[in-house]
Amino acid sequence: MTYCVAMSLAEGLVFVSDSRTNAGVDHIATFRKLHVFGVPGERLLVLQSAGNLATSQSVISLLRQRLNGEGPHLHNVASLFAAALLLGETLRETLAREGKSDLTQGVDLSCSFLIGGQIQGAPPELYNIYPQGNFIASTEDTPYFQIGESKYGKPIIDRSLTYQTQLEQALRCALISFDSTIRSNLSVGMPLDVLVYRADSLMLPSGFRVEESDSYFETIRRQWGTGLRELLGDLPAPPGDYWN
Amino acid sequence: MTYCVAMSLAEGLVFVSDSRTNAGVDHIATFRKLHVFGVPGERLLVLQSAGNLATSQSVISLLRQRLNGEGPHLHNVASLFAAALLLGETLRETLAREGKSDLTQGVDLSCSFLIGGQIQGAPPELYNIYPQGNFIASTEDTPYFQIGESKYGKPIIDRSLTYQTQLEQALRCALISFDSTIRSNLSVGMPLDVLVYRADSLMLPSGFRVEESDSYFETIRRQWGTGLRELLGDLPAPPGDYWN
Repeated sequence: MTYCVAMSLAEGLVFVSDSRTNAGVDHIATFRKLHVFGVPGERLLVLQSAGNLATSQSVISLLRQRLNGEGPHLHNVASLFAAALLLGETLRETLAREGKSDLTQGVDLSCSFLIGGQIQGAPPELYNIYPQGNFIASTEDTPYFQIGESKYGKPIIDRSLTYQTQLEQALRCALISFDSTIRSNLSVGMPLDVLVYRADSLMLPSGFRVEESDSYFETIRRQWGTGLRELLGDLPAPPGDYWN
Repeated sequence: MTYCVAMSLAEGLVFVSDSRTNAGVDHIATFRKLHVFGVPGERLLVLQSAGNLATSQSVISLLRQRLNGEGPHLHNVASLFAAALLLGETLRETLAREGKSDLTQGVDLSCSFLIGGQIQGAPPELYNIYPQGNFIASTEDTPYFQIGESKYGKPIIDRSLTYQTQLEQALRCALISFDSTIRSNLSVGMPLDVLVYRADSLMLPSGFRVEESDSYFETIRRQWGTGLRELLGDLPAPPGDYWN
């Protein structure tokens, strides 16, 4: 499995992906699932993928190869919407090629993507590309998307994130969401790829890889675990009715 | 869907179930999923169910009808292990009857159960009955089981519960686990059925129904939400690397 989260907030964008891939518990590997495209000063596009790795790698490879071609590509499309369309189309192209084979043997070739970023002249945007290639955009009401193993890490986001949440707090929220997921599910694992983008900066952050030994991540996961147990202990005692 | 959790700890047992059933979002109803059997002073057995409601109701009905019969039943079996065997067998009997019909039309008739309790002369035990009718017992290493929509509420339990956790803290942990699930998933809903059993008491608690308006539950869900956001804000700021 995989877990990726992306947030589109007033201050900018936050992306975090894990890097574990597995085809059964005895085929575990590390692959990057966060990919950066863009032109400094003009556009940034961040892609995250979940699902079949052969499919998602093929899609990313095609998108990269075509950056120097004639047709529409991620560095020349006029809008994030057009980039989402192109990504969905490239996904369909890959699935049409791979799915034709008689050799698929029931293997699920599908995958899903998140694509977020900003193109000069428009505000930052974030899209969730379904396995069918169609997509939805985030809004102020629903300012985040998850793909992959999303359930374990959803409650902390639902409880603490709004469109107005500051980037720093949103990043902490995303990291805790990953810690919760990693503790409860073996198919999501370190290292994590993190990228934070400040709205209108039009910079191309390279992103940061959070390794298992990262001292900041270690500090917050420990502090969070301790704090949570204290918070639970500080709740008032259940009244007598509860012991009937 | 459904969410049920049961914990078997040094001090005793904690059971919490939601009561929402749904066959599509436009067929939502309230059904109790926590069922108490037993003989005061001699035995307590608590059953929780998730999955197809027709199947689980039939299993519970058969188990209740047979309490006055000749054969083995929940009030005369010699051990919790034998009770789990009987429950698994009754589940297979129901599925054999219902699954024979040509009318199942691909509907999933399966369901799973938790059964926990104590029979005089043995310590409390907890079993997880799979849809196939076989089962596993909880241990000190893994002192809890969940059935149904389990992922949202798993991180808080994994972070805070051990076999030595006191009943009061375990109950708070279970209630917060439900709150997390209810906030993030529409298919799990109030009211909740709660039952706490003190080891060796051999009492038959009637259990308590936590309604939407319950002031204690309202207090802890609010205090938890606020505390969590404060805890997140108190974490140290991400270092410069994270903003690359």
